[in-house]
Amino acid sequence: MARYEIYVTYKKGIFDPPGATAERALRNLGYEGVESVRIGKFIQVEADTDEATVREMCDKLLANPVIEDYRIEIVGEA
Amino acid sequence: MARYEIYVTYKKGIFDPPGATAERALRNLGYEGVESVRIGKFIQVEADTDEATVREMCDKLLANPVIEDYRIEIVGEA
Repeated sequence: MARYEIYVTYKKGIFDPPGATAERALRNLGYEGVESVRIGKFIQVEADTDEATVREMCDKLLANPVIEDYRIEIVGEA
Repeated sequence: MARYEIYVTYKKGIFDPPGATAERALRNLGYEGVESVRIGKFIQVEADTDEATVREMCDKLLANPVIEDYRIEIVGEA
């Protein structure tokens, strides 16, 4: 059983609505030093599969390869 | 200007609906080795502020401390 961490982010240039909303809200709260906020997904998977299979799972379901990039890290055996 | 990465996850024991849905969907797609999927947020902040202020931003807006944990990493100066 392996543990994977997957970081899903919008591709460069793709508009990120939740990030833009958080950015504006933080400035409205008085945090004027905030330059940019991008919000992606942090996915933790425990599975009895290899990394190539996890990559396939990302392409099919966990990420949207049209607008998102992702990075997979193996963090250990559970 | 500093760059921070924030990992927001549901606290242990808190039900994670998107994670549970992805888990079931992956098994239905034939990935039977999948044991568990948890989906949190991966937030990238560029700001001219210190880490204590970023922590405050998490408590007030970026995370929900009642049901979520978060971890902040400083990843560099932009």
